[in-house]
Amino acid sequence: MELQLPRGMSDTPPEEKILRDELIGLIRKTFEAYGFNPLETPIVERWEILAAKYAGGSELLKETFKLTDQGQRDLGLRYDLTVPLARYIGMNPTIKRPFKRYQIGTVYRDGPVKLGRTREFYQCDADTVGVRSMLADAECLNIAADVFSKLGFDYELQVNNRKILNDLLAKVGLTGDAAFEALISLDKLDKLGQDGVRKELMEKKIASEAIDQALELIQVGGNSEERMKAIAMRIPESEGLRELRELYAYVDAPERVIFTPRMVRGQAYYTGTIFESYVRDSKINSAFGSGGRWDNMIGTFLGSKEQYPAVGFSFGLEPILQELKMRRAESAEGLPKCVTQVYVIPFKAIVKEGRQIAQQLRRAGINTDMDLAGKGISDNLKYANAYSIPYVLIVGPDELVQSKVKLRDMRSGQEEMLSVEDVIVRLRTLPS
Amino acid sequence: MELQLPRGMSDTPPEEKILRDELIGLIRKTFEAYGFNPLETPIVERWEILAAKYAGGSELLKETFKLTDQGQRDLGLRYDLTVPLARYIGMNPTIKRPFKRYQIGTVYRDGPVKLGRTREFYQCDADTVGVRSMLADAECLNIAADVFSKLGFDYELQVNNRKILNDLLAKVGLTGDAAFEALISLDKLDKLGQDGVRKELMEKKIASEAIDQALELIQVGGNSEERMKAIAMRIPESEGLRELRELYAYVDAPERVIFTPRMVRGQAYYTGTIFESYVRDSKINSAFGSGGRWDNMIGTFLGSKEQYPAVGFSFGLEPILQELKMRRAESAEGLPKCVTQVYVIPFKAIVKEGRQIAQQLRRAGINTDMDLAGKGISDNLKYANAYSIPYVLIVGPDELVQSKVKLRDMRSGQEEMLSVEDVIVRLRTLPS
Repeated sequence: MELQLPRGMSDTPPEEKILRDELIGLIRKTFEAYGFNPLETPIVERWEILAAKYAGGSELLKETFKLTDQGQRDLGLRYDLTVPLARYIGMNPTIKRPFKRYQIGTVYRDGPVKLGRTREFYQCDADTVGVRSMLADAECLNIAADVFSKLGFDYELQVNNRKILNDLLAKVGLTGDAAFEALISLDKLDKLGQDGVRKELMEKKIASEAIDQALELIQVGGNSEERMKAIAMRIPESEGLRELRELYAYVDAPERVIFTPRMVRGQAYYTGTIFESYVRDSKINSAFGSGGRWDNMIGTFLGSKEQYPAVGFSFGLEPILQELKMRRAESAEGLPKCVTQVYVIPFKAIVKEGRQIAQQLRRAGINTDMDLAGKGISDNLKYANAYSIPYVLIVGPDELVQSKVKLRDMRSGQEEMLSVEDVIVRLRTLPS
Repeated sequence: MELQLPRGMSDTPPEEKILRDELIGLIRKTFEAYGFNPLETPIVERWEILAAKYAGGSELLKETFKLTDQGQRDLGLRYDLTVPLARYIGMNPTIKRPFKRYQIGTVYRDGPVKLGRTREFYQCDADTVGVRSMLADAECLNIAADVFSKLGFDYELQVNNRKILNDLLAKVGLTGDAAFEALISLDKLDKLGQDGVRKELMEKKIASEAIDQALELIQVGGNSEERMKAIAMRIPESEGLRELRELYAYVDAPERVIFTPRMVRGQAYYTGTIFESYVRDSKINSAFGSGGRWDNMIGTFLGSKEQYPAVGFSFGLEPILQELKMRRAESAEGLPKCVTQVYVIPFKAIVKEGRQIAQQLRRAGINTDMDLAGKGISDNLKYANAYSIPYVLIVGPDELVQSKVKLRDMRSGQEEMLSVEDVIVRLRTLPS
């Protein structure tokens, strides 16, 4: 037997899992501070749901893992958390709206493995279903701002509105399918450059004058306010612009919210506000989170005449973790290798007393490991070093007579004789 | 399209997910207090790994969901967290032992759906790999004791040792395969009763005298100490008995650790200590957690000559949650329906001010939702009621002039005019 993982999937060893749990904890806490409640759906869905006409679309479906159960029912591994949310709402019609839920979980895509794309990865979504007001859109931006500030990131929230894009395209004569085709190409401005996009639009039989005007409009210069004014001159009645101004009134850090008319976001389901977040001084080029308003998807998916306006935000767990890892690795504390704060080494004859001291520390809320194998002091110190445990507590017979233990700071090598109570006080005040 | 879930799987709505997260949080904190570090492995494994000779066995394999990736590699959904741990250790040979890891995650079994058996469920394991000392076994029992005490359960930890069972069976002439066959049948004592087990053992061609003696020995009466003494008379040299006595010396609540010689635990891989935990006053009949020592499995699985002694404990998340749900439902506070502590209702003209007050509360660590849809007071109160949000904060223009807001206790209906600062103090001191 060869010991192998499925292609494109990987283990998360403790040193990475600790960081991920810490980040997920911060995001959960922030979602909950804004009144979002946790929902969990199975990792497996009926194939019929995943393949539904207004679900993820044919490209995603090609990358969906398929399986059957013993009853020969067709099933698949979920490729996102949005389709399960739409299904959940459809199956729970009496749910009181606004329904604000968050979900953090793994999704699966059997696609090409390259450039850091994996076949199992986390999504981390908060969505509000049942509200049209920009107050809900603003909550998404404020949550992002809260999380990125707490992480110490110099972040930027780029916003746009699909209605503005549609109005601009209508102004240059593009509506319906032609407008959507134009959006798909304009979305590639970063990748293909102006000439590349122009070429693609020409191939799509879009008039060259319209192309030039569209490219000029979405690349208007100046700061957010100047851009809004410039665009308002062309489409003064735009509902998208009105929404954008309202959104600005509800965000906590408007100076970090950058109106970016060239931002499109590829998915067909966005209907209004769209946004992406970036970290200015990061080496990572991709968005650290993104989202937008998707007012029509749930209703169409459910084939319902009812309206389900929705807006949501999704954190990019992977880029955030990579950024955190780089920063921590360069910092003095480094990356945590374990959760343990102190490692107790009892002399052989007094293992029971050593164990009781370990229990005392644990009860006081200090993560404590102890020598379970009866190793010698030097092997034990090597062990504590290998796991970067910051403190070691040596429980010897001489010390015990004085009701003291020896606390060793593994970084400095300094040792001190203390009572267990003093050890607790000392370790509790440490930054965890 | 029919909106359906895969058979045997279910959504976890907020009111259940909140409770599950709370329980998982307590268990994680306890595992970490004992120096166990988190590990995460993919939900998908190579089929070869899951089907390996010393993995879960053919019965489990029959219930394993099978899938393939685009490269036609055979994969399966994991049926437990133990086989992935063995694979992880094999793939990371330089890992420093003792390796103490915990993992909490879903596993999948495509078996018959009945009697509360589901096809997606949580396992919640902590294992120590690389230690023979009973100190490691005792940590499992102490962790269980800590968690059950914190939950307020009147718990009991039943322990036994496979070496004791083997020695007892050897004493009545049963060794090797015959001994294991006998164990399998003795494990059914609760289900089949004494006559049923006797019949099954007769069918297995085990001598009726040996059967009678075995049944008598494992059902010896008295308290733990008396049972140990009675059994020591028959097998005074038993290493299992020595281990059991050592185990007792390392547990915090020996009075709750009940030596139960008739406890077998079905799995073939157990080699020493075995245990199961029960809640005495519960209507739920199944074990709330279980585990034991499995010294040989990893080495055999890896086909390695190296020794990988291991001991672990697994919490039964489902029975614990069911028990908690019943208790909470009967209690005054009831089951939490949402994480939100207060719901802000601003009058229409002062939405911005209302939003700022909500932000102030969130920054102070209070989970705050607000009216996003501009509903009237009475609709808003209905909404807060539907989600059992305990407090509502009414932000009106008159109150705002006095720098006050109206806090309404939704249970009592009492209202009070307070400054936002006072609201924060009030809500912070609430039991969360």
